[in-house]
Amino acid sequence: MRQEHVVTACVVIIGNEILSGRTREANLAYLATALNAQGVQVREARVIPDIAPTIVAVVNEVRTRFDYVCTTGGIGPTHDDITSECVARAFGVPLILHPEAKAVLELHYRPGELNAARLRMAHVPEGATLLHNPVSRAPGFRIGNVFVLPGVPLVMQAIFEGCKHMFAGGRPVLSRTVSCAISEGAVAADLAGIQNRHSEIEIGSYPFFRQGVIGTSLVLRGTDAGPLDAATAEVAAMVRRHGGDPTIENVAT
Amino acid sequence: MRQEHVVTACVVIIGNEILSGRTREANLAYLATALNAQGVQVREARVIPDIAPTIVAVVNEVRTRFDYVCTTGGIGPTHDDITSECVARAFGVPLILHPEAKAVLELHYRPGELNAARLRMAHVPEGATLLHNPVSRAPGFRIGNVFVLPGVPLVMQAIFEGCKHMFAGGRPVLSRTVSCAISEGAVAADLAGIQNRHSEIEIGSYPFFRQGVIGTSLVLRGTDAGPLDAATAEVAAMVRRHGGDPTIENVAT
Repeated sequence: MRQEHVVTACVVIIGNEILSGRTREANLAYLATALNAQGVQVREARVIPDIAPTIVAVVNEVRTRFDYVCTTGGIGPTHDDITSECVARAFGVPLILHPEAKAVLELHYRPGELNAARLRMAHVPEGATLLHNPVSRAPGFRIGNVFVLPGVPLVMQAIFEGCKHMFAGGRPVLSRTVSCAISEGAVAADLAGIQNRHSEIEIGSYPFFRQGVIGTSLVLRGTDAGPLDAATAEVAAMVRRHGGDPTIENVAT
Repeated sequence: MRQEHVVTACVVIIGNEILSGRTREANLAYLATALNAQGVQVREARVIPDIAPTIVAVVNEVRTRFDYVCTTGGIGPTHDDITSECVARAFGVPLILHPEAKAVLELHYRPGELNAARLRMAHVPEGATLLHNPVSRAPGFRIGNVFVLPGVPLVMQAIFEGCKHMFAGGRPVLSRTVSCAISEGAVAADLAGIQNRHSEIEIGSYPFFRQGVIGTSLVLRGTDAGPLDAATAEVAAMVRRHGGDPTIENVAT
């Protein structure tokens, strides 16, 4: 794929529950797809534990290596929610009570319910911009190129929808999938030839086993529809030469 | 959680299809659970693209930082399967045709089917130990503390089952989950108190929304059943004091 003007992102997934195997990670695929729609390519993801020095170090490493960083998890009211204070430390600024976030929570909770633990969710690094949470009210925030989002998928998605315009992306990557009931080893050599002739397109091969059928999905990705469709037609013709019946899908990712 | 004798692992997930959002990651939760059963704690996971210098650098970084590394993806027959050659480069050894792996593939494929592309799957870094694949035959391999596994979950799991005895782990982490229909903000302060009194136990709090009910799962993890059960009883009693009806599960992760 052509590398000019590629706007990149790293997703940092914070939470012991993902690393223990208790909770299956559910935000990366959404963020990758949604960021691509904004012209931002996710180039790495990290899953890290709720350990403060680790979070601080990883945030500082990836915010310099990628155009954008999205973190998920660790911004709730309990003792294990340490993302906000770690991001503040990473940026070298204090964690402050944000008056607007406090006002939002005061409206949301019944009198007496906004205890000290819940008020932690109104604390953000100094200089951060709040990200509106239409579901459960406790906001996310943005500081510099780092977007701090919650881990609960429904809430994360709602906040992302409200802040996606803040990402200044390049052109979204377009994708075509050619699927066939041929094993990938049979088409590998011809596929490599097509990849070699189309260096601006990234071609991936993914075997599948569905209802007893061995098959392959050949995925082509690129930012220009013209060369992408030309390479896709070559792949489909190649599949037919091998006796296959290609089905072609145009999808967003 | 007590940190002595903790045997750690990093899972490196290799594949553009995960970072593009096309494929939802499906191996981390399995590996985290299965490694814990061997007494090995997954402390980080990385999702990285099919880019050779990235794979080489990440493998070399994490194999020194963790006791074990498991990679998934990129060991098939197509041009985008570059994990084996990258792991060879990371270890500074040549990629060689392994006679036993070749023999396995010769038995598996019909005469004439074992083309050059499929023969790539019999190439491993010099000095690597093959990991038996009872499903689709092309083996994984181990070199040093790095286990190289395929990305297709069913195949990955079958290979892992066959090689899990190779992990020399410590004691598995035991887990208890106390669930209740109380929002986590209501119990946060008391929960922090219990965490402070039980530094050998790691306590996590995870909100859930199920069938219109807001609730919280409080997860306690530790290697000693005695202190774990004592802390779990305290958490359950605390939930009852808040008017909740705790359900307690003992699970492996």
